[in-house]
Amino acid sequence: MTKVDLNCDMGESYGRYKLGDDAEILDYITSANIACGLHAGDPVVMDTTVALAGKKGVAIGAHPSFPDLQGFGRRPMVMSKDEIRAFLVYQIGALKMFTHLHGYPLQHVKLHGALYNLACCEQELAEVTAQTVAAMDQDLILVALYNSQLYQAGKKYGLRVAGEFFADRNYANDGSLLPRSHPEALISDEDQAAERCLQAVFEEKLAAADGTTITVKADTICLHGDSPQALSFSRKIKNSLQSAGVTISPLWNFL
Amino acid sequence: MTKVDLNCDMGESYGRYKLGDDAEILDYITSANIACGLHAGDPVVMDTTVALAGKKGVAIGAHPSFPDLQGFGRRPMVMSKDEIRAFLVYQIGALKMFTHLHGYPLQHVKLHGALYNLACCEQELAEVTAQTVAAMDQDLILVALYNSQLYQAGKKYGLRVAGEFFADRNYANDGSLLPRSHPEALISDEDQAAERCLQAVFEEKLAAADGTTITVKADTICLHGDSPQALSFSRKIKNSLQSAGVTISPLWNFL
Amino acid sequence: MTKVDLNCDMGESYGRYKLGDDAEILDYITSANIACGLHAGDPVVMDTTVALAGKKGVAIGAHPSFPDLQGFGRRPMVMSKDEIRAFLVYQIGALKMFTHLHGYPLQHVKLHGALYNLACCEQELAEVTAQTVAAMDQDLILVALYNSQLYQAGKKYGLRVAGEFFADRNYANDGSLLPRSHPEALISDEDQAAERCLQAVFEEKLAAADGTTITVKADTICLHGDSPQALSFSRKIKNSLQSAGVTISPLWNFL
Amino acid sequence: MTKVDLNCDMGESYGRYKLGDDAEILDYITSANIACGLHAGDPVVMDTTVALAGKKGVAIGAHPSFPDLQGFGRRPMVMSKDEIRAFLVYQIGALKMFTHLHGYPLQHVKLHGALYNLACCEQELAEVTAQTVAAMDQDLILVALYNSQLYQAGKKYGLRVAGEFFADRNYANDGSLLPRSHPEALISDEDQAAERCLQAVFEEKLAAADGTTITVKADTICLHGDSPQALSFSRKIKNSLQSAGVTISPLWNFL
Repeated sequence: MTKVDLNCDMGESYGRYKLGDDAEILDYITSANIACGLHAGDPVVMDTTVALAGKKGVAIGAHPSFPDLQGFGRRPMVMSKDEIRAFLVYQIGALKMFTHLHGYPLQHVKLHGALYNLACCEQELAEVTAQTVAAMDQDLILVALYNSQLYQAGKKYGLRVAGEFFADRNYANDGSLLPRSHPEALISDEDQAAERCLQAVFEEKLAAADGTTITVKADTICLHGDSPQALSFSRKIKNSLQSAGVTISPLWNFL
Repeated sequence: MTKVDLNCDMGESYGRYKLGDDAEILDYITSANIACGLHAGDPVVMDTTVALAGKKGVAIGAHPSFPDLQGFGRRPMVMSKDEIRAFLVYQIGALKMFTHLHGYPLQHVKLHGALYNLACCEQELAEVTAQTVAAMDQDLILVALYNSQLYQAGKKYGLRVAGEFFADRNYANDGSLLPRSHPEALISDEDQAAERCLQAVFEEKLAAADGTTITVKADTICLHGDSPQALSFSRKIKNSLQSAGVTISPLWNFL
Repeated sequence: MTKVDLNCDMGESYGRYKLGDDAEILDYITSANIACGLHAGDPVVMDTTVALAGKKGVAIGAHPSFPDLQGFGRRPMVMSKDEIRAFLVYQIGALKMFTHLHGYPLQHVKLHGALYNLACCEQELAEVTAQTVAAMDQDLILVALYNSQLYQAGKKYGLRVAGEFFADRNYANDGSLLPRSHPEALISDEDQAAERCLQAVFEEKLAAADGTTITVKADTICLHGDSPQALSFSRKIKNSLQSAGVTISPLWNFL
Repeated sequence: MTKVDLNCDMGESYGRYKLGDDAEILDYITSANIACGLHAGDPVVMDTTVALAGKKGVAIGAHPSFPDLQGFGRRPMVMSKDEIRAFLVYQIGALKMFTHLHGYPLQHVKLHGALYNLACCEQELAEVTAQTVAAMDQDLILVALYNSQLYQAGKKYGLRVAGEFFADRNYANDGSLLPRSHPEALISDEDQAAERCLQAVFEEKLAAADGTTITVKADTICLHGDSPQALSFSRKIKNSLQSAGVTISPLWNFL
């Protein structure tokens, strides 16, 4: 029986600022990546989001970032290995205490934005990330783009690694995501996105933006919660996977 | 055999900014209150300070604050109970992960600056603090001014509470500290400070600034690490306590 | 001919976070209070908002706050006079450079949130505010609740002071606003709000929440831009004032 | 008569954190680059530093940075042109209001840290900087490494540009500074540094780290104020220049 996890970024509100329909998106996903206060989220939002995700039976992960609230963690920054390590520990530690307080375990770590993208292609950054996660808790699952530097580093440090597929993004022929600045970066058609998810799950192959066939993996599929059409997009993908006989289930159930 | 803990605020550097002679002060104390990034400290400093304190055999505590780096956590702020709770969990959780990573336990929680002062005199703030600490870990020791609201709240929620005595501060006749703005707030004479520590430990009585005799408790004595004379002050107090037969020992050894 | 200014807080988005329908609200107001980056707003938002307000012919004011992005400037903080002065200069200076760059003058200063409320009732805070604004530019208009400490301080330091009336807020019998935590603090009925504006403008008298008649002044009426019904509320008030023969005009045209 | 300006970064303290001996360094320099709050400095520090520099007759400049207090503005960040422009306006505007309040003009703009280094080698960043400075005030002097992209962009947008020479840094053979991470980046010998300054001023030629002769310009020489030997270093350089007949004078007197 084929199992797939659906993940989404959560808890990205901040103080007076609201972002995303977390309560509703939680009905469609099995893993929540919860912001840790440095690109989005604040302690109150983290508390509320952990409680909500746990109550709905959704597995909880930490979603650490470069420290850049104004840039929402989307601007590349140059940080040393020691800095990366310490900022990961800080964020994941803070989130873990909220999960502990509410009685839920911490399932996974997924880097956010520019940090995710850089760690997927820079070996040193990938390795310090994997090593740090493993040092905190060998049972944490690391979410990473399939076959990226981050994916390989996770394996090297003995972590379970979830290969991630992006439902609404086009790929370059080396398996990386087209950058958001690229005109064809985003896939906005729901049917096309759902179709690509099925391909990723069952064939583990997909056409890159230039037509080349690339190998992908979809242990977990990333939905996005902060666009206007997020809900109907999520519903469509979940339904088409289930109709095709896929079981939607959190990572720790099958990885 | 009389046992007393000596504590000091630590890890209050931030990025390029250095504050305090942590490495040297650690030779005189048995408990370190490590800043958690919101009034001072950053992830790199927390990492370094936890490693250093642990290596020197000093027990580690979290030193959470109002979120106010520019004001060093010394400005009173009005925050709701939910906000206080979430900001405590965030900071203590972050620090705890560093202690976990380096293989040390977390011994205690001591609030910083304006948050400490307010929690000592406001019942609601005291109770949400004690309740939150107990909910995270019933074994954490809460450091609080003797007989303050915070001290009583810690007892009420079943925590071990360490009565704190301030070596370099004058007291009002209700047992509270004279505010820093008061001309007689600080005691700068080492001999006088050491003498007061002995009185606090052996008699549990002391003259307040107005001459009234007040009851104090000195499970732990607070030194300050960021003044020029911090080192000689610390040495003097430690020596005079030891000469009087007091054993200097971390809180968890006797509380 | 009776003239009244309509003002609204603007530019309160931050990075990825959007707040308020600024572009639409600008069609109903004559003065924009633009956030200066410390409770809301960031440099990019300030740039965009100044350009937009100026293009629509709306007069521009600075909207400085306590430094508290996470609390949206709504939490009282204790700051020294020197700190208040410096934080006002910083924020107003930053905004003024944007108005200069886009070729518009800076009309007024209106404090935000907790800083506004405290300066309305604390004489020292009121005086340092008025003195600082006058020192920067004697031609700036200070917006203040009528007869508050801030209103009187503005007069004392030779500033033109605009008496402000709040369309959607109930008043205590001393002329202050009921705090937001009070169950009757907000007036959500548009007709009632519009009726109160007419009373404030033509009679300069109004019933406080307890029925007492208080004296008010409405050189400028504060609308709020971040509620779902902000637009229809603004339209209603503007229309009913204009139907009653009031000219809606920026403060510098008549003060 | 040869004239040279001596500049130094100033006002880099923050809240409780003190950095540099500003009061003493001001006796040796003719231009002060004052931090604007985003990598260092806060409104109170800016106020104090502007007052101090002005009183000592030192010309005042703005020292804007990437927004990165924890990294002290030394970490490269990727920001869009709109962001760069807005963050420059914000910082320079804030500082200018302090100079206005204290009755001094704003002489120059010098970028800080990673922003300076990137703008010296990236044309787009250089041009948005020069264009923004010119748009704010055509009379501002732009400080830039000689013949860098930033130097050329300043000329292109009609600004007076001060060619800067670094007394304590080694150069690569393309005229750029060796990065701080390079083992030979810093020159710690005072005599050597003073000798290089004389060469830069009188010959406009210098040996790069690899021995190649490069062309340099020293309208202004950068001292550093935050090292332990800053004072004696500054004294040495000033004395040797004066002994060689150079007049030490602020940029606006001769550029």
